[in-house]
Amino acid sequence: MNGDDWVGVDAAGKPWVCASGLRQSPINVPPTHALEHRGSTIPLKHQTTWSYPAIVSNGSNVEVINNGHAIQVEWLSPYAADVEIAVPAQYGNKTTITAVLGMGDNDPVSTVRATPLQFHFHSNSEHLVVGKYYPLEMHIVHKITDLPACAAAGGCFSVTGVLFELADGGDNPLLKAIWAAMPMREGAINYLPAGAEIHLEDLLPPANARDYVTYEGSLTTPPCTEGLLWHVMLKAQKISHAQWNKYKKAVALKDCEAAAVANETVPSAASPSPSATVHHRHHHRRLLEEEAPVNPNDYTCKVVAYGANYRSSQKLYGRAVKIGRAP
Amino acid sequence: MNGDDWVGVDAAGKPWVCASGLRQSPINVPPTHALEHRGSTIPLKHQTTWSYPAIVSNGSNVEVINNGHAIQVEWLSPYAADVEIAVPAQYGNKTTITAVLGMGDNDPVSTVRATPLQFHFHSNSEHLVVGKYYPLEMHIVHKITDLPACAAAGGCFSVTGVLFELADGGDNPLLKAIWAAMPMREGAINYLPAGAEIHLEDLLPPANARDYVTYEGSLTTPPCTEGLLWHVMLKAQKISHAQWNKYKKAVALKDCEAAAVANETVPSAASPSPSATVHHRHHHRRLLEEEAPVNPNDYTCKVVAYGANYRSSQKLYGRAVKIGRAP
Repeated sequence: MNGDDWVGVDAAGKPWVCASGLRQSPINVPPTHALEHRGSTIPLKHQTTWSYPAIVSNGSNVEVINNGHAIQVEWLSPYAADVEIAVPAQYGNKTTITAVLGMGDNDPVSTVRATPLQFHFHSNSEHLVVGKYYPLEMHIVHKITDLPACAAAGGCFSVTGVLFELADGGDNPLLKAIWAAMPMREGAINYLPAGAEIHLEDLLPPANARDYVTYEGSLTTPPCTEGLLWHVMLKAQKISHAQWNKYKKAVALKDCEAAAVANETVPSAASPSPSATVHHRHHHRRLLEEEAPVNPNDYTCKVVAYGANYRSSQKLYGRAVKIGRAP
Repeated sequence: MNGDDWVGVDAAGKPWVCASGLRQSPINVPPTHALEHRGSTIPLKHQTTWSYPAIVSNGSNVEVINNGHAIQVEWLSPYAADVEIAVPAQYGNKTTITAVLGMGDNDPVSTVRATPLQFHFHSNSEHLVVGKYYPLEMHIVHKITDLPACAAAGGCFSVTGVLFELADGGDNPLLKAIWAAMPMREGAINYLPAGAEIHLEDLLPPANARDYVTYEGSLTTPPCTEGLLWHVMLKAQKISHAQWNKYKKAVALKDCEAAAVANETVPSAASPSPSATVHHRHHHRRLLEEEAPVNPNDYTCKVVAYGANYRSSQKLYGRAVKIGRAP
């Protein structure tokens, strides 16, 4: 759950850097006044810009996926979003997507385009802000291929994080279509109904209040690849109690019993009494990995731990965290 | 996990009020400026006062308990703490421990003493403050028998909550003795070593900065009894990454395998293949309820979900939340 114990290799046999990396995500975001006192401000002309047109469903082109770890939204149609990340005007073959963090205020600038691939949610938030959590965090994952080094690597990544705070009022209307289509069972995919729209840009703070912190970090799940440019929006969106509870149930660790084998008595060396009852329990979210395919109707599942699909905060190891202040 | 699905009866056969109660805890604490605009300030002379001498261990009088749901500290020696809660000077047989919430600013006052019984921790925090969580919350549980209505009921309860925010620095020294003695296994009890001290008062904000919110709420675990006077300190304490991770591991939901029965093949109607492998998994935290006693050494346990021993935020249903401002 933490990352300290995530040990493995990627598809190419390269060891994950989760436990060894010094530029891991998420982090505990320092107070903004501390950042500004250090002069760590990204000037306006070096700031990332986000422009997301509405994602409009035709009934079969927008998927809401329960992958057992998170709820993720993907689209099968091209998406004309325009996210622009600053790089030095004279960028070379070794310029990285995080170069903006090292640019001087007067350095001439060019931009590269970042294309959103999917967005998903974590609960709790993965990033903390001054030691505190938010109930939910949305991650919009972008790929960049414009830079030579990114093209050579098959793409660089940049993630934009949006925090949600619990509100006592009604549901956040911007989440309603996604929440209505949210599959409660691992491995299930629902299509957003025809005509439903996702206004991703409205889930970010308004452009004139889009303060963000930015730093070099990693994927928050294995292989924990580093070299990502992170953005975390400082103004939180709202989520209702009902919306948050539904999300937690969807990604909950579930304790499932197959009706036909429940309460079967088997001898057990660990509980030597011949009448010991052993429940045959299955973690629903692990069915895909460990079990032969079964009819989900054969199981009754009980939530044993609400969704906690977040990684623990990682150390900064001296990394720069900078702030982009809206105009 | 939520409370919506906590249905049962107490020892006297009375149904729990978890799902039906209108004065449940925890809550999402509103912004303090909103409270003050409503004139919901507790005048200084009606404020609760806390005075906790050091708890000094002789090696066998202070227990640190892992009850499977939380880490709890109890003491076997009398504890001369002095916590005073305001009640109307002319209190009667029906005056409740929450009467202070309804007192006018100029009402004459008396006080009753609240005796701390134990303290324990939740992660995440149970209370939110303006929609955000803290990583940890300490609850000091007090019993009051001085009021006639409390004496008749076998005691009233008042809880003081202290929030901890994640800090990138070193360990909080005030937690060190407790954390060092923290049992990682459910059902285990460690004694605080002789000479170790717990400075409970220092875990509260200093007396001149002891702003708190107060409201009428409930136990946050079944039977969810209402009528408790709650206090939540507004200034948070610090907890280090290492301290928080240790706490989460201690109260984690663990997935345990009894070595002797692991990977045994049994026929199963739900997975009809004769070679289907069924893992005999046991939730460590449920061993006490469901299983015959076993030698813990027969099990290997893996953390499947970090400690999330917190209840979801409950609706206010119009309850008053008041603020006590330090002098």
